[in-house]
Amino acid sequence: MAQRHPDSPLAPTAPGAHLPSADRTGGEVLAAYLGAHAGEFLRALRLGEEDEASAVQLMRGSARRISAALHTYEPLVEAVWAERLRGELGWLNATLSREQQCAVHLARLRSALARLTSDEGGGQARSTMAVGAARAGALLERQLTLVRTRAHSSTLQAFGSSRFHAVADSVALLVSELPLTTAAAAPAPRVLTPLAEAAHRRLVEAAQALPLAVAARPYNGYALRTVLAESPADAGADEAQDAPWHRTRALVRLSRYALEVLDGAAPPPAGSPNAARLHGAARALDRHREAADAAAAVAGAARTPRITPATAYALGVLHTDQRSEVEAARYAFSHMWQGMVPAPAPATAP
Amino acid sequence: MAQRHPDSPLAPTAPGAHLPSADRTGGEVLAAYLGAHAGEFLRALRLGEEDEASAVQLMRGSARRISAALHTYEPLVEAVWAERLRGELGWLNATLSREQQCAVHLARLRSALARLTSDEGGGQARSTMAVGAARAGALLERQLTLVRTRAHSSTLQAFGSSRFHAVADSVALLVSELPLTTAAAAPAPRVLTPLAEAAHRRLVEAAQALPLAVAARPYNGYALRTVLAESPADAGADEAQDAPWHRTRALVRLSRYALEVLDGAAPPPAGSPNAARLHGAARALDRHREAADAAAAVAGAARTPRITPATAYALGVLHTDQRSEVEAARYAFSHMWQGMVPAPAPATAP
Repeated sequence: MAQRHPDSPLAPTAPGAHLPSADRTGGEVLAAYLGAHAGEFLRALRLGEEDEASAVQLMRGSARRISAALHTYEPLVEAVWAERLRGELGWLNATLSREQQCAVHLARLRSALARLTSDEGGGQARSTMAVGAARAGALLERQLTLVRTRAHSSTLQAFGSSRFHAVADSVALLVSELPLTTAAAAPAPRVLTPLAEAAHRRLVEAAQALPLAVAARPYNGYALRTVLAESPADAGADEAQDAPWHRTRALVRLSRYALEVLDGAAPPPAGSPNAARLHGAARALDRHREAADAAAAVAGAARTPRITPATAYALGVLHTDQRSEVEAARYAFSHMWQGMVPAPAPATAP
Repeated sequence: MAQRHPDSPLAPTAPGAHLPSADRTGGEVLAAYLGAHAGEFLRALRLGEEDEASAVQLMRGSARRISAALHTYEPLVEAVWAERLRGELGWLNATLSREQQCAVHLARLRSALARLTSDEGGGQARSTMAVGAARAGALLERQLTLVRTRAHSSTLQAFGSSRFHAVADSVALLVSELPLTTAAAAPAPRVLTPLAEAAHRRLVEAAQALPLAVAARPYNGYALRTVLAESPADAGADEAQDAPWHRTRALVRLSRYALEVLDGAAPPPAGSPNAARLHGAARALDRHREAADAAAAVAGAARTPRITPATAYALGVLHTDQRSEVEAARYAFSHMWQGMVPAPAPATAP
């Protein structure tokens, strides 16, 4: 097969298009991956002025992948440098994500309200319930639009900041000046596969610590348990229950990107699911995250002073509906996971 | 096997204890069943003063079975007489059921509130949410206890009424003076099995008209669609959606009792599920009914004037939770039904 040196000029190709080779070093393979995504990042930067939304999406995807690769394959790069760059990419990704997340939550809650008010029985169009639903909808639109507008300002501010230009410079230098360690000189299969395997193992450990058996039973009601328990100031109960799932979501992503880096130059770790299945699992956990965040936004709106009881009732309905979506996403993930990863050996009978 | 003439004095045995015989007439078998349950009814009447709750339960069970048997096997009995008795038994059952239903709804909503407020995150104990939940609970206790007290008065009033004594007299006469038609003189297998089959067919038709394919998909959200749609005056949207399920519940019951009548003297209709499976299906649809009624009680409580937004929020949560239970019961029934009754031949591909 044809080879391409990682230092060669980067064509704006999709990440999967690198040509594999069995005798490249770990450093070369990692550099090719980082270089390709640095290229995407810089392309997004140029796109920024014409199509901001696409540019942000492209930039976030590259930033996440660069950061994930530097995390999983950390022994191949200079540690202090990698950590600093990952910190800056994390800041950028968090800043750029807020606006899109608001849009996602708003769309989700709009469609939930439409679904919950579909009057099949032909009742009166302007009932108290319907008025409450309409007011709840207007309240959420107002609040989330305000947050979104602020997030948009933050995005624009970030793009104009010297901090952002420093990140962009660091990313541009990834192509030519990647600070590799001596470990990176080993053949790709010997050095990359064990690190991908470690990433996969962290995911398996996190997923198996989840209450998967409960979640795999439909209508278990587990995600609803905290709907009326959470304290008004910090939504603590939901968050405590959701955190291990969010952590697993982050690890699914790391596993996906770790496999992308290998790209035929090193074998994937034994027992790791293929990219399509990981992508499916990631989508279930994305939905989990979105529903959990939307539920929290509804709980937040319910703390608005002087809302009417009808508005509050509709918000209670909407909150519960979104927690039920959280439960549904856990159900979906649990079944996907069971099909993806062999169950651990059963404990000996008591 | 030993035989017992249906006119012999009735021992207070369980209905299943009649001795089967292949050469009894349809009328004899039906009379034995009616006589046994008339005996239970009269036993409940004597028990009434010591243990009212058990007496009511026993009496309702007998009244339902007598009425169901007279319905399914109507061609064997004098039609006008049967219809009048069924009307009176229906009145009695409805009157006696209200108190118990209130108790069931209250217990269901109490446990739902406890479940929804189980604070796993260790939030503040007296948050706004928790206060709202407590107030919603107190409101429901107050309203349902009031309804229950009224229902109890109605029960006592019914027991003292001349209408009730007339029903009891009619039931007592079932043992000795059952007005059978000439059709009742035919052998039990020839006359009872086709009627049981017709009852089963009515059930199959009703069940297959239900949206079983949707209901069999977990988290389909169908039962939640009307949560915010229903008009405040009549809860019309929920009811329109639930009615076919309630009707199927009644037909499951008729099928169960139709099989009880046969009791070995006539073969059960081909393809009818056994009693245990019908009982399981009946329980799923009982749960459907209870959750639907509890949801309606919550919607009713939300129409109380001058409730606080926090109370209204908790009621919105509770309403949605109970509609989610409705969905779960439909899911359970759909899966039971698929295991119980062979699917109809698929339509030819378009």
